[in-house]
Amino acid sequence: MSEELGMTVKKSEKFMDWYYEVLQKAEVVDIRFKAKGFDVYLPTAMRTIREMERLFAEELDSTGHLPVMFPIIIPESNLKTEEEHIKGFAREVFWITHAGANKLEERYALRPTSETAMYPLYSLWLRSHLQLPMKFYQSGRVWRYETKMTRPLLRPREFRWFETHCAFKTNEDAIAQVEQDMEIFKKIVTDNFCLPFLLIKRTEWDKFPGAEETYAFETVLPDGKILQIGTTHNLGQKFAKVFDVKYLDSDGKKKYVYQTCYGPGISRMLGAMITIHGDDKGLIIPPAVAAVQVVIIPIYTGNTKADVMKKAGELLGSLAEKDFRVDLDDREQYTPGFKFHEWELKGVPIRIEIGPKDMEKGCVSVVRRDFRERISVPEDKLEEQLLEIMDSINSQLLKRANELMKIQDAKDYPELKKKLNEGGFVRVEFCMEEKCADKLKEDTGAEVRGTLFEQSTKAKGKCVICGKKAKEVAYVGVSY
Amino acid sequence: MSEELGMTVKKSEKFMDWYYEVLQKAEVVDIRFKAKGFDVYLPTAMRTIREMERLFAEELDSTGHLPVMFPIIIPESNLKTEEEHIKGFAREVFWITHAGANKLEERYALRPTSETAMYPLYSLWLRSHLQLPMKFYQSGRVWRYETKMTRPLLRPREFRWFETHCAFKTNEDAIAQVEQDMEIFKKIVTDNFCLPFLLIKRTEWDKFPGAEETYAFETVLPDGKILQIGTTHNLGQKFAKVFDVKYLDSDGKKKYVYQTCYGPGISRMLGAMITIHGDDKGLIIPPAVAAVQVVIIPIYTGNTKADVMKKAGELLGSLAEKDFRVDLDDREQYTPGFKFHEWELKGVPIRIEIGPKDMEKGCVSVVRRDFRERISVPEDKLEEQLLEIMDSINSQLLKRANELMKIQDAKDYPELKKKLNEGGFVRVEFCMEEKCADKLKEDTGAEVRGTLFEQSTKAKGKCVICGKKAKEVAYVGVSY
Repeated sequence: MSEELGMTVKKSEKFMDWYYEVLQKAEVVDIRFKAKGFDVYLPTAMRTIREMERLFAEELDSTGHLPVMFPIIIPESNLKTEEEHIKGFAREVFWITHAGANKLEERYALRPTSETAMYPLYSLWLRSHLQLPMKFYQSGRVWRYETKMTRPLLRPREFRWFETHCAFKTNEDAIAQVEQDMEIFKKIVTDNFCLPFLLIKRTEWDKFPGAEETYAFETVLPDGKILQIGTTHNLGQKFAKVFDVKYLDSDGKKKYVYQTCYGPGISRMLGAMITIHGDDKGLIIPPAVAAVQVVIIPIYTGNTKADVMKKAGELLGSLAEKDFRVDLDDREQYTPGFKFHEWELKGVPIRIEIGPKDMEKGCVSVVRRDFRERISVPEDKLEEQLLEIMDSINSQLLKRANELMKIQDAKDYPELKKKLNEGGFVRVEFCMEEKCADKLKEDTGAEVRGTLFEQSTKAKGKCVICGKKAKEVAYVGVSY
Repeated sequence: MSEELGMTVKKSEKFMDWYYEVLQKAEVVDIRFKAKGFDVYLPTAMRTIREMERLFAEELDSTGHLPVMFPIIIPESNLKTEEEHIKGFAREVFWITHAGANKLEERYALRPTSETAMYPLYSLWLRSHLQLPMKFYQSGRVWRYETKMTRPLLRPREFRWFETHCAFKTNEDAIAQVEQDMEIFKKIVTDNFCLPFLLIKRTEWDKFPGAEETYAFETVLPDGKILQIGTTHNLGQKFAKVFDVKYLDSDGKKKYVYQTCYGPGISRMLGAMITIHGDDKGLIIPPAVAAVQVVIIPIYTGNTKADVMKKAGELLGSLAEKDFRVDLDDREQYTPGFKFHEWELKGVPIRIEIGPKDMEKGCVSVVRRDFRERISVPEDKLEEQLLEIMDSINSQLLKRANELMKIQDAKDYPELKKKLNEGGFVRVEFCMEEKCADKLKEDTGAEVRGTLFEQSTKAKGKCVICGKKAKEVAYVGVSY
């Protein structure tokens, strides 16, 4: 094993140092591109992202969303059409002003999000109520001029995401879409990426610019901080009215649509998976999105090489046939020990070792990445055992992630401050006034994230911050 | 059938009008985005592109290329490092100068291509000869400020492509990579997209800025014009020297690498497929990249509906199981006639009609999109027949495309001018002087595209333009 390959920092001791080390050594992201907040995604990231995006695309296809691709630029006049929207994004937008030696007649923004790019076209496309619901999605990148300290994947200036933009006849349809967005998140992000989340309804002062309601999917990282990994917005009719998105209804009247948009953040979810699931040996990639789910490592000496390699090749073929994503590491310049460490570092969920002793017994050695536990499996039970182990890794990762997803209650301000120090969400009764949230932020760095989408528990007592009558039960935490 | 659905322009009469009509009606591209040369890709485009890109990614993966993703911006100082490169691209680059209200300290270019983004990192990554060859690829978009008239997909300002960037020990390795790039092109673009091409070596004055040699993959569109659908470049050591990309060789010496880069143009290839394969009824998508290869259309009356729908559902399931990309059009608001036209317009290669009469005979009706020929197929022969028909459509599309790929010889300037009017390539003896190419361009609008990569036939006679001694056999044509 090379000195360079092994991790040197312990996750539990210096979390952020561990993160930067694993990003580099596991070939996830290179942060040395010469523009702040713009990172280079390396093969481990791209291969995992390919699986993540495939799951989202399949799910969106099967729920009636159609794929489109809009330009990455938005003419300034489009971006300015919705007043709150431009106010919200004005400080975050990169501007293209020149082309070649020419000054452009109109500036183009690098899109920070695509509402104002897409809805002028929706206005041209939509004619009749028969076209509703109209549901489109695109996968790609957006850019925001982040002025806080940037962090690769977690808080970059360029990030990958999916965005869906849907139009409906009624507000009820729009709310049902928000519920579907949540179901999709649960199915993909929790069940496959092993990331739990709360769906938090943002406060009035913290909504997406132009939205009626904003809901954020939020998870908790190992340092106790909260990371928003997606959002969904009920846009109501605001954008429809400024972009003239209407349809001829069956009663012969022209009506504005109700709109929603949904943005699962691929970069941030990858960052969440890396930080939450990884350990002192490197990454642990959930089986559902691991580009390589099973790696076969042949173990031989000069004498046994031919037989072992033949057997390893057969295993590779038979597992690939059964739709495992499997790789055979037949590199001759590295020792098995080096290979073990490298594949552990890159987070491959299962390693199979095959050598002469295993072959004599008709078995292979199977090592799972999470517990690093080794078992001997008879060849005829291998497929069944691998499926079981993958399921078990999946449950185990989710279980650990759920343990980080701390939600505590606090009855007064001192208790709130104390529990904020322990990380995760703290649940409090709250007056829902912005100035109270500002005070909290100033005192503690923590933010009122909002209330829960699913069950809005009415508050009975007093606001933990100002002591006036509380309106809602709010979730508070320190965020990325 | 709705008036709006059917095509009104004949391809053979008004080619460009036909192109714009089919782009709109088959939901390929919407050209009404408010920025010249930036188009919106609609579901038909995106679904086809997904299949196209899957084929490229699989092939690049299997030939040792690793996926990466670089930022879409390039700091100005990077772009300027290689002198010829910036000279070549200076007039084509979009510049980001501001973020929010701030002027950036350094301007960022929207990447027109990624050499100067990537190679500074290559310099950091590459240490030892053991890492060579080093082969990376990314799929994404690039932007060029096209000043000629823009055309959707064919000559836009924003386009999708793949790019590979490889580094080698020797120039021979680099040349072998150019050959592999050509093999990959043949396997994917000719065998699956049904597009023939010539691999043309560009003249000295028409090379990629910074390259030692530039090779272009070129096909011929139905109007006789030539479209470059990809390029591959032997960069030699020019970029390696300015970006300091070197390695420690086994002899203990530090050496610069030899580099190649390869850019299959996804947008342009989609444009080529649409224009070359389409007909007066709409698109014809080659089976290998059709998102829907087979569409099932149930034909019933009130009485027979339940039985027909049951059978149609069974067919759907059994074909999907056999890995056909199949769809069942069960929309109730449209007649079968309307559906036939719509799926023909969108280019689905095969339509299956199933009705009570077919069911009595244990058959289905199968209609192929290219000849629009209908046959009755017994259910137990269906899989076999569909595979045969898909193969036959594939051959047929390639055959038609080959007929457009006209290559004629001309012995003198009048004959050259006459044959240029007939479209395609004209092969002539040529002095290889830029001023002769300029004269040709001025006289006819045609360009010297270059010489052939595979067989460089030496010229024996005189340059058809100036009459001086010819150096090479060159290919001439009018291009997009």
